[in-house]
Amino acid sequence: VAILECVPNFSEGRRPEVIGAIRDAVARSGPVRILDLSSDSDHNRSVLTLAGDPAALAAAVEALVAACVERIDLNRHQGRHPRMGAVDVIPLTPIRGATMQDCVRLARSLGEEIARRHAIPVYLYEEAASAEHRRDLAAIRKGEFEGFPAKIRDPLWKPDFGPDRVHPTAGCVAVGAREFLIAFNVNLATGDLEVARAVARAIRHSSGGLRFVKAMGVMLEARGLAQVSINMTNFRGTPLHRVFEMVRSEAARHGVAIAGGEIVGLVPEDALLDAAAFYLRLQGFEAGRVLERRLEEIRPGASAPGHDGPGGQGGG
Amino acid sequence: VAILECVPNFSEGRRPEVIGAIRDAVARSGPVRILDLSSDSDHNRSVLTLAGDPAALAAAVEALVAACVERIDLNRHQGRHPRMGAVDVIPLTPIRGATMQDCVRLARSLGEEIARRHAIPVYLYEEAASAEHRRDLAAIRKGEFEGFPAKIRDPLWKPDFGPDRVHPTAGCVAVGAREFLIAFNVNLATGDLEVARAVARAIRHSSGGLRFVKAMGVMLEARGLAQVSINMTNFRGTPLHRVFEMVRSEAARHGVAIAGGEIVGLVPEDALLDAAAFYLRLQGFEAGRVLERRLEEIRPGASAPGHDGPGGQGGG
Repeated sequence: VAILECVPNFSEGRRPEVIGAIRDAVARSGPVRILDLSSDSDHNRSVLTLAGDPAALAAAVEALVAACVERIDLNRHQGRHPRMGAVDVIPLTPIRGATMQDCVRLARSLGEEIARRHAIPVYLYEEAASAEHRRDLAAIRKGEFEGFPAKIRDPLWKPDFGPDRVHPTAGCVAVGAREFLIAFNVNLATGDLEVARAVARAIRHSSGGLRFVKAMGVMLEARGLAQVSINMTNFRGTPLHRVFEMVRSEAARHGVAIAGGEIVGLVPEDALLDAAAFYLRLQGFEAGRVLERRLEEIRPGASAPGHDGPGGQGGG
Repeated sequence: VAILECVPNFSEGRRPEVIGAIRDAVARSGPVRILDLSSDSDHNRSVLTLAGDPAALAAAVEALVAACVERIDLNRHQGRHPRMGAVDVIPLTPIRGATMQDCVRLARSLGEEIARRHAIPVYLYEEAASAEHRRDLAAIRKGEFEGFPAKIRDPLWKPDFGPDRVHPTAGCVAVGAREFLIAFNVNLATGDLEVARAVARAIRHSSGGLRFVKAMGVMLEARGLAQVSINMTNFRGTPLHRVFEMVRSEAARHGVAIAGGEIVGLVPEDALLDAAAFYLRLQGFEAGRVLERRLEEIRPGASAPGHDGPGGQGGG
């Protein structure tokens, strides 16, 4: 079965009864798995992490959109995070037995359905984008809810689906397909924020660094440490170990050591297995060597193709 | 459901029709999973890798023993690997949702049943051992099939279950509980076998090294490289990264670099996640952060406790 992840962001982070009602609507939609829900009251925004097959996710997203349109009025919404819709953004990510193309296909059909049912303008972004200038979510969202009545009249920003008119309370929505995003922070053994900023500039794509890396320097006031805060937008293209080693070497240039790393949220198993294989110099390593994967792959009573040389698990 | 691994070794590695019949008997025994079967004709020995819950493994092992007793006569068996039984050794290992104590319990009940049904003397070893001098499989097996009629009369070597008399064709069997064994080889960038031997001596328990490490130096003739061949008998006690780093530092003393590492057979996911966490300096890392684990833990439609701070998967 193909498993995709979907991480819808919606514009309510303060009223627990509204957040709970939206969550419950998603839970009742069918066999989707709710992996996480986090709400931020400064941002006035919530993020749901869902997983399931395409049909389960489609039902969940439709329930989510209906629940948000009913309960959220963007004319009364304020928060620190930019937003253009009650449901602001719906990214899809392949997880297991699924391709990016599956996600693009689902993004398109979801977008079409949302536009049809609710008369909300829909923009496709990243891998699902219909034009190069629409790949970047920030470019689509620029102007936000308040600026969109003007922006939507620009032929460059005609919606991919739905009317050329902003929904009066629910605004617009972006639906996209992208690789899994890993939030990886590295703390430096210094209180000097400038070092973290210099390292961030060195490693990030926008200033000449690694292609699938976004980064900034931030100060961890409580600990007195400077942190390089990193978003990895494609861990297969730019793997964890390459990012970490570049942080280490750039920090060393300033005479600064690594204090520690941390993963925020979830991380795909493959990203960590790749790091282990790099550091242990494993040659021709395949994830099929992992015991637990083998357990999943093989049906009860079935025989695996023999592959171990002597010396594997022999000898008792 | 508790999942254990069982890796029975039996004394037939040459006659494919016998090996196949034994394998088929195991496959027909019930819902056990056969992860691997490897036979070595020099050793004249085969190794089955099985996984399942305790009941499935008990049924599989009973079918295996019956099939081996019927088809293998140790009086006619020759091979390079030491052996004392038609079924020589039956190690049990906890994999998921199971403890070492579960394995010890199953080792005892399996041993009792094998002795009762087939009148084969049974020795418990490693974590299941009934006395300290019986922990080590090599000590139990010493003397082999041919020497056991004398050895079994020594009160020190009275069987844990079954008669004080070697089975005339099937010999004796050792049933034990142990941690997962990882076979990890590190190739050195040298053709000098003495360097690999020196590194092996430095890292292994028997000559003063790491507690859960067995190692030897071997020559890879075809590649012209010396290899440190390592058995890790408890990867939680002595983790992969510590072994690898010690190999690296001991080899460097001789001016020799690492050419590469390899895993033979299967490796538990936790062993590689631990290595990734070490090298990426992840602080307070838990396997629950791994996306795929989260997918397994959470039932459809259920809610996970919220745990991500903002900045996890937010932002679309």
